[in-house]
Amino acid sequence: MFFQIIDILGTVAFAISGVLVALDKKMDSFGVLIIAFVTAVGGGTLRDVMIGIEPVSWMRNMTYVYVIVGTTVFTILLRKKINYLRTSLFLFDSIGIGLYTVVGIETGLIAGLHPIICIALGTMTACFGGVIRDILCNEIPVIFRKEIYATACIIGGLTYFLLRKFMADTNLIFIIALIVVIVIRLIAVKFKISLPSLYKGEEL
Amino acid sequence: MFFQIIDILGTVAFAISGVLVALDKKMDSFGVLIIAFVTAVGGGTLRDVMIGIEPVSWMRNMTYVYVIVGTTVFTILLRKKINYLRTSLFLFDSIGIGLYTVVGIETGLIAGLHPIICIALGTMTACFGGVIRDILCNEIPVIFRKEIYATACIIGGLTYFLLRKFMADTNLIFIIALIVVIVIRLIAVKFKISLPSLYKGEEL
Amino acid sequence: MFFQIIDILGTVAFAISGVLVALDKKMDSFGVLIIAFVTAVGGGTLRDVMIGIEPVSWMRNMTYVYVIVGTTVFTILLRKKINYLRTSLFLFDSIGIGLYTVVGIETGLIAGLHPIICIALGTMTACFGGVIRDILCNEIPVIFRKEIYATACIIGGLTYFLLRKFMADTNLIFIIALIVVIVIRLIAVKFKISLPSLYKGEEL
Repeated sequence: MFFQIIDILGTVAFAISGVLVALDKKMDSFGVLIIAFVTAVGGGTLRDVMIGIEPVSWMRNMTYVYVIVGTTVFTILLRKKINYLRTSLFLFDSIGIGLYTVVGIETGLIAGLHPIICIALGTMTACFGGVIRDILCNEIPVIFRKEIYATACIIGGLTYFLLRKFMADTNLIFIIALIVVIVIRLIAVKFKISLPSLYKGEEL
Repeated sequence: MFFQIIDILGTVAFAISGVLVALDKKMDSFGVLIIAFVTAVGGGTLRDVMIGIEPVSWMRNMTYVYVIVGTTVFTILLRKKINYLRTSLFLFDSIGIGLYTVVGIETGLIAGLHPIICIALGTMTACFGGVIRDILCNEIPVIFRKEIYATACIIGGLTYFLLRKFMADTNLIFIIALIVVIVIRLIAVKFKISLPSLYKGEEL
Repeated sequence: MFFQIIDILGTVAFAISGVLVALDKKMDSFGVLIIAFVTAVGGGTLRDVMIGIEPVSWMRNMTYVYVIVGTTVFTILLRKKINYLRTSLFLFDSIGIGLYTVVGIETGLIAGLHPIICIALGTMTACFGGVIRDILCNEIPVIFRKEIYATACIIGGLTYFLLRKFMADTNLIFIIALIVVIVIRLIAVKFKISLPSLYKGEEL
């Protein structure tokens, strides 16, 4: 129940981020809905397809469909007021990537894959919805250029496998790794931390 | 036999639309062929991969390959005269999206999926070849911005499931849903109907 | 052992080409790694997903992960000197597409697919890593516009199936087809041969 609420909050945040980018590109209502959908379920879909879990998750659980459609309608209607929610949105989004990371890792573990592959799957689940969103909107994906985002997922993933060496309580491991991702993301944005630039001294 | 002719007409129309966009981008002959191919089979491929029907359809039926290669060569050679065919092409294209929509829906039904997911699969089959075409050509997908296109597929899909409640003849349901998509598309283009704008009163 | 060395050389060359494009786009280190990864394994991943070989190859063989991560770090550090290696890189890259082509063909054969589909799969394995790289970097894929690249794969594929009619030694067929791809690519670049233009006499 607790996890389900987190999951829905994450889906809502991801869908809203999709709607906002699509509105920015002056898409019509169908385009906005598709971008919201892809942002929310794209990462998990890519993961499922690569592992071979088919039909992919969102086709077997109507909750996602209802939540995303509802969120899209709601966001379109209230888009002029959505700015007041930016802080909550950012918090939901961070919760979302934390949750998606750990869910991705556990999906990989169930498929019997190597820890490094599991961490890659977790990061993919959390980040590639946004990557597909940006490609459909004809932008270079934002997470390839700035922001500690994927890095938070990777560190959360490392924490997950480190804890597994010392702890047996999988629920607790789940929650700690989730919190690690969220906290790193919050701190990075709060203090404007980004990856060290590869282009120091070069003209940009 | 009847359905097969429709299927080939649709594939031809989709492939031609791919060739025309690729020529516009000054691609070489290999690029043009790939774009034709992707436009014609991209939607169905995405559907098959997400449901888990693999190898995907076009790998198991050489007709598609021959039709698409033939159409591409023919269109490249006659591209200066293709304008005279625009009305026929538009008709074939509308038949194509109608057929692809219903085929996509029935593929979802066979996989035991929820009606809403089936309608999404039908729309995906009909529309995502064009989406992938536009992404490969570095454009924001045209169906996200204008035209009643996906909307026709969705309404056709709703009709399909509505009829299933009252009728037993699946062939008849197939044909009616197909015609609904085609007619909505033709009317929408004829009378220049598009989705109500989300940006009324805003500067564009 | 011999094939494994070729495979690693090809992966290294593909990863480096990804790193160079990503650095050109001023991506951060995470973005550079992802582009390197996608360039090296993207074609094979697409092939595996469409045929239904899941989890996809690179998830089951950690060598790729280590080679790609190592190559990325190395290339970023030495990127100012990488120009001296351009000739070797071009050679590795040509070896890579040759090998990927033949591996793709044989994967298709094992899945029982038609020779034309197998050639398409070989070409996809060799070329679509670069296509995905270019899309993620917001460029029209370079192989759709110039260079004999895919054409070399297709001719190599035709050679493969022609030889199968006359020879029984599959290892020898493998090697001859591989060499055909490499030689065509080298000759085409050396003599600046490209596909005949479709746009003769038109303004570009």
